[in-house]
Amino acid sequence: MHDTPIADRPPTGQGTGDDEAWRIRRTEADMDRLAETESIFALGNGWVGWRGTLDEGRPYGMPGTYLNGFHERRELDYPEDGYAFPQFSDTVISAPNAALIRLWVGGEPLDVRTGTLRTHERVLDLRAGVVERHTEWISPAGHGVRVRSVRLVSLARRPVAAVRWSVEPLDDAVEVRVCADLLANERVPERSDDPRAASVITDPLTAEYRHSDGYDGVLVHRTGHSEQRVAVAVAHDVHAPDGFAPGVDCTPDRLRLTLAGTLRAGERLQLTKFAAYECTPVDAVPPTELARQVVAEADAARAEGFDALLAGQRAALDVAWRTADVQLDGDDELQQAIRFSVFHLLQAGRADGDRTIPAKGLTGNGYDGHVLWDTEGYVLPVLTYLDPPLARSALRWRHAHLPEARERAAELRLTGASFPWRTLGGRECSGYWPAGTAGLHLNADVADAVLRYVGATGDEEFLAGAGLELLVETARLWHGFGHWSDTGTFHLHGVTGPDEYSALADDNLFTNLMARRNLRGAADAAERHPEAAARLGVDPAEVSAWRAAADAVFIPYDRKRGVHQQSAGFTEQPEWDFADTSDDDYPLLLHFPYLELYRKQVVKQADLVLAMQRCPGEFTADEKARNFAYYEARTVRDSSLSASPQAVLAAEVGHLDLAYDLFAESVLQDLADLGDKTGDGLHLASLAGAWLALVQGFGGMRDDRGVLSFDPRLPAAIDQLAFSLRWHGHRLRVTLTSGEARYELPDADPETGVEVWHHGEPLRVTGAGPVTRPMPEVPDPGPEPPSPPGRRPARRSAGDR
Amino acid sequence: MHDTPIADRPPTGQGTGDDEAWRIRRTEADMDRLAETESIFALGNGWVGWRGTLDEGRPYGMPGTYLNGFHERRELDYPEDGYAFPQFSDTVISAPNAALIRLWVGGEPLDVRTGTLRTHERVLDLRAGVVERHTEWISPAGHGVRVRSVRLVSLARRPVAAVRWSVEPLDDAVEVRVCADLLANERVPERSDDPRAASVITDPLTAEYRHSDGYDGVLVHRTGHSEQRVAVAVAHDVHAPDGFAPGVDCTPDRLRLTLAGTLRAGERLQLTKFAAYECTPVDAVPPTELARQVVAEADAARAEGFDALLAGQRAALDVAWRTADVQLDGDDELQQAIRFSVFHLLQAGRADGDRTIPAKGLTGNGYDGHVLWDTEGYVLPVLTYLDPPLARSALRWRHAHLPEARERAAELRLTGASFPWRTLGGRECSGYWPAGTAGLHLNADVADAVLRYVGATGDEEFLAGAGLELLVETARLWHGFGHWSDTGTFHLHGVTGPDEYSALADDNLFTNLMARRNLRGAADAAERHPEAAARLGVDPAEVSAWRAAADAVFIPYDRKRGVHQQSAGFTEQPEWDFADTSDDDYPLLLHFPYLELYRKQVVKQADLVLAMQRCPGEFTADEKARNFAYYEARTVRDSSLSASPQAVLAAEVGHLDLAYDLFAESVLQDLADLGDKTGDGLHLASLAGAWLALVQGFGGMRDDRGVLSFDPRLPAAIDQLAFSLRWHGHRLRVTLTSGEARYELPDADPETGVEVWHHGEPLRVTGAGPVTRPMPEVPDPGPEPPSPPGRRPARRSAGDR
Repeated sequence: MHDTPIADRPPTGQGTGDDEAWRIRRTEADMDRLAETESIFALGNGWVGWRGTLDEGRPYGMPGTYLNGFHERRELDYPEDGYAFPQFSDTVISAPNAALIRLWVGGEPLDVRTGTLRTHERVLDLRAGVVERHTEWISPAGHGVRVRSVRLVSLARRPVAAVRWSVEPLDDAVEVRVCADLLANERVPERSDDPRAASVITDPLTAEYRHSDGYDGVLVHRTGHSEQRVAVAVAHDVHAPDGFAPGVDCTPDRLRLTLAGTLRAGERLQLTKFAAYECTPVDAVPPTELARQVVAEADAARAEGFDALLAGQRAALDVAWRTADVQLDGDDELQQAIRFSVFHLLQAGRADGDRTIPAKGLTGNGYDGHVLWDTEGYVLPVLTYLDPPLARSALRWRHAHLPEARERAAELRLTGASFPWRTLGGRECSGYWPAGTAGLHLNADVADAVLRYVGATGDEEFLAGAGLELLVETARLWHGFGHWSDTGTFHLHGVTGPDEYSALADDNLFTNLMARRNLRGAADAAERHPEAAARLGVDPAEVSAWRAAADAVFIPYDRKRGVHQQSAGFTEQPEWDFADTSDDDYPLLLHFPYLELYRKQVVKQADLVLAMQRCPGEFTADEKARNFAYYEARTVRDSSLSASPQAVLAAEVGHLDLAYDLFAESVLQDLADLGDKTGDGLHLASLAGAWLALVQGFGGMRDDRGVLSFDPRLPAAIDQLAFSLRWHGHRLRVTLTSGEARYELPDADPETGVEVWHHGEPLRVTGAGPVTRPMPEVPDPGPEPPSPPGRRPARRSAGDR
Repeated sequence: MHDTPIADRPPTGQGTGDDEAWRIRRTEADMDRLAETESIFALGNGWVGWRGTLDEGRPYGMPGTYLNGFHERRELDYPEDGYAFPQFSDTVISAPNAALIRLWVGGEPLDVRTGTLRTHERVLDLRAGVVERHTEWISPAGHGVRVRSVRLVSLARRPVAAVRWSVEPLDDAVEVRVCADLLANERVPERSDDPRAASVITDPLTAEYRHSDGYDGVLVHRTGHSEQRVAVAVAHDVHAPDGFAPGVDCTPDRLRLTLAGTLRAGERLQLTKFAAYECTPVDAVPPTELARQVVAEADAARAEGFDALLAGQRAALDVAWRTADVQLDGDDELQQAIRFSVFHLLQAGRADGDRTIPAKGLTGNGYDGHVLWDTEGYVLPVLTYLDPPLARSALRWRHAHLPEARERAAELRLTGASFPWRTLGGRECSGYWPAGTAGLHLNADVADAVLRYVGATGDEEFLAGAGLELLVETARLWHGFGHWSDTGTFHLHGVTGPDEYSALADDNLFTNLMARRNLRGAADAAERHPEAAARLGVDPAEVSAWRAAADAVFIPYDRKRGVHQQSAGFTEQPEWDFADTSDDDYPLLLHFPYLELYRKQVVKQADLVLAMQRCPGEFTADEKARNFAYYEARTVRDSSLSASPQAVLAAEVGHLDLAYDLFAESVLQDLADLGDKTGDGLHLASLAGAWLALVQGFGGMRDDRGVLSFDPRLPAAIDQLAFSLRWHGHRLRVTLTSGEARYELPDADPETGVEVWHHGEPLRVTGAGPVTRPMPEVPDPGPEPPSPPGRRPARRSAGDR
């Protein structure tokens, strides 16, 4: 018990400008955005996630403690059922809440909605890995207290989260009662009508075992249908003045430590809670044994002490930030925002090979906590370069669920494997097949993530094992699904691409090009590892067939308009009537039927533009410029996945101010709650997209099948941009100003190096020192192509922020 | 009380061959097909429908008493909801069952599954309009009884149904107890997993009022959510030997008349029940008043007597059969079957202008009792010629629901009116929009039915009123929905045609051609009734716009293959792998995902072929032959709507044996339960399709915009085919043999007449006498085009029946 008391640490307060770029701050002014703040202040380590609720639990937006993979199962009911429609869905549910510390002052509960809030500030510290809170509150009866807390979810100890909390009188003595709860089946708000929100299950947990010992205790519960068990232990460390006699009360759903007494002026009550979590299938570990495990983990954390946990946070983050930090000079708010983005990606990515990264991480229950293509499509393209083992872990999780994907393909009467559009445990949980099962491109996104990871790391062992099997089974899906026309072209009919305002289209170009990449990648890998391929039943004939299909993939192109088609016939479809669409009509999916959306040239999210980002070599520069302009005019960005690829392509074709504004939209998606959905959890894909917008957009980074190139070009708003990448074991640092680009390997020997391309020139970068090159002029791309009326991103580039 | 007792009428027994063609008979051999028999023996008058359950209620398949429009409302739950997805569905529910007469013999209940069934026969008499039953049963303890009954749903008295029932000892005296029940909330079987079945609501009725008076009584109930009230009164007429003291017992859900005593040899107990039904919205009539109405109706029926009801049946049917009968010499089974088909159409069609004709009539609860496009697409094209006022009534029902259709169009952001794909009360109840809301062709089917009715009757008053408004609002739908291409063609994107193994296709040819017909029909009608049109806001510019769109409708055609495309690109889609599809894989929708079905060239039901039937002038004879062959090879007939249009086109292109086999499949759909779904109710569209197959197929009848023509051609299996049509107030009788075609107006003055075309030659047919013409040779159409393997209809044409 040698932890430093909270009050002895420097007050949070307003720091220096540089400090502020590492902190997210919310004050009493933000109290009406509770759910949003809970998501932004969510802490996690990939296994355990605590939403940023107030210590006292109320008011709340949506309380939640999420364990990666912990879920309940519910039946899906269809008004008109169909063959192979998923009959149940797995839905994330909250584990028992160990963060609660309720306070009564003179018999009145601390509630920031009552009394007088003299100060209320919470800070997420991106380097410390904690959320700090400082509240000064006068109760309705006039008793003043100062409450402070520091929370963390341990980056060093997987099952552990902890909070140190203190209360002291502001002036005169106050009578206080403190209840530190571990609470199962906490009440949650009703389900929203928005189809993108989570389904809510009331009282999902059944108590199996409870035990208390001194101030500490443990609760074990199980779910009703998903056959899962969860155990949570809490260990308390109390520093209280004399006269506070703790009492512990344990019921099936609640373990409560109560401390009551009088705090005189200058006295302080400090309570530290160490919580440990585990969940398993019910048949894996008996309740008492699971209880024993979590008690041991909570005890060990307490024995090590809260200061040690704090130190562990900082140490882990210091290592991570060495590669992950992005310096963006010229816009302090976006500098802060990009760090916030990367922080949450690092938190979410820390799951090991048994788990993956849901679309919301562990920050909320949006999309029922499901994993979507966001992971391979957006998050892994960042983690591959910031922390490659995290990308490998997520890919191993996909590989672990190949059996279900093969079963699903067989059920769908398809060949190979078909991964689920939405899932928690590997099985398809999507309840609307035109925008679920039909989104077959997810399989190519998985393959693409494999190829990217291998290309960036040279991890041939992974490629020969899990990687190859993922590539082969997805290639088999495409080969069996595709159709050879009479004229020898290879077609993919009736699929849904990334743009969810289209569905069941023929030859979606994104899907076609990604399938081509998948087929060729599988063929290359099989030839590089022929024995492993033979064990999967791959023979040269199959490889040849993949290559033939890849070579013959159909490319829908409109000669008259001189643009590629998002899918066959797209450019012949009716135009959307933007003149008759009001601002209140967005997002369109809440105001127009799919019948209208699907048949018209209105794009929810980058689709063809995303194809140009992912498969840059498939398009000429002219084609990219024409395509970008055509689709920019029709893309409404009703999806948070859209701004980033648009930013990357806008930068590539030279519209740097537009690119910057799109980057700003992506990076502020959650901090500014642009989509009004942040309360359901953070949009990890958008946060990842912000990094991609900077690095691929302004850094011009491309990694096309193992060749790393940069075509950097900075918008006027950025004075300097610096970022690092992991590349074949090295940390490559790139620093860009308007004048020059600097490439260096700060950690490498002078003799070792990597090859990169700068605006078409190959460079060898070694540990011997930086290589610099001038930034070429960006050719004038002409006037900025129009966005749909009212849908251009907010202008930040022009300085009106 | 002067009714003739049952036993004094001639026994049912086996009649003459001619009689048998007017009767449907089921014996103990059919006892394992209870639900199917209940549908086949269903009696109705368009307002009240009694399924053909056994008098004693058990065993049953699915008991049901349906009142047209009487329903409950239930919420629809979607795993992923979407804009304008219907949030509730109206579902037909059973009114209280007044048909029940339970019998105990020596304390043992009459149950045909126990004891010994010496005789068990039930007969549907198509001329008498009754179901007769004759059972001789020996109880397990050895007591023998003969039970007879005659049931009817009155064609003369709208709210009334009645049953006369008797029991007598077979040999020795027996002790009997008879319970005649009126039973609400009767138990029904669980819902099936088949998506095409009905949803089942348990205990939908809440008792509001009950009253008994002597042997008679009344129950009034209301529904929980749909705000409807139903009242049923029963009046009894008892003929019993001395010693039978009746007792009446009335509980909220059951009114029971009990008769107990001993029947000696030669004695008989006879009970006649007269039931009367009404349902209304709950705010229309109070419970006691509704009770008074139905009691008065039941009393009046009893006062008139059962024999009078029997006479009323026969009189109504005699009138109807004069036009409706079809004589088919050469195949006794199909002769019987076509009469069965027409009988059920006449029963179902008898609703007046407040109601319409659901897809199952009132014979079952399949499709939740909903009205689909079956009505305008199949049933009205028959009723228009057999009994035009019935067609007008159904169209008036559509017109009465124009307000909801306009609201729906506005909700869908469309112009004009959009009628619901499935409905009971006018609102969309379809829970799967790609095969519901997207089936916009329903609106053109409604317009087509209007045009056909007006063309056949010359009913300008209807056209100037409801007809015009229906035409105008549907034309406005198409005009707003359509898209003008750069090259001046008019397109309908993203719709679903009749074939439900395709969805959301561009330029479905059926839809395009029917929309053209709709637009031109509206333009013609508006010009014929300019003042009425002006009141609807139609001006010459709008009419011109309709005509321009109609003229420019895009016709998808594959030049290489020389066939029309079901929708744009259809013939480029992957072929279905029939070689790898087993017999057990049908119907495909239960074994393959829509992902596979939609993107491949596999056709559930006639679509392009139906277009050739409905819009014959849009295709040359050569095109019809090539199209028919192409689509025949890809049409699996997983829908009962398919055989009829295929038969019509097979006949037109000269494949008369195939046409005959398809006709047989259509006409036997329910009598042979070919789809194993007859238990849910009869397929009225298939029954109507059977008539169309004969009259349009072999009769070669076409009615293209008011011109009535015949190109008759008989298959070898038919010696003579005779049918009648109502045409502009006349009854036109057509009699076809292999040698000649005879046209006559048997009821007309010698001076009045009509013009018809016979194989391209105009004829004037008057009351002066028949006009005969030779039947031309049918040119050899070449070999019969193949059907998908295993999917050719059973060969009946070759005589192997």
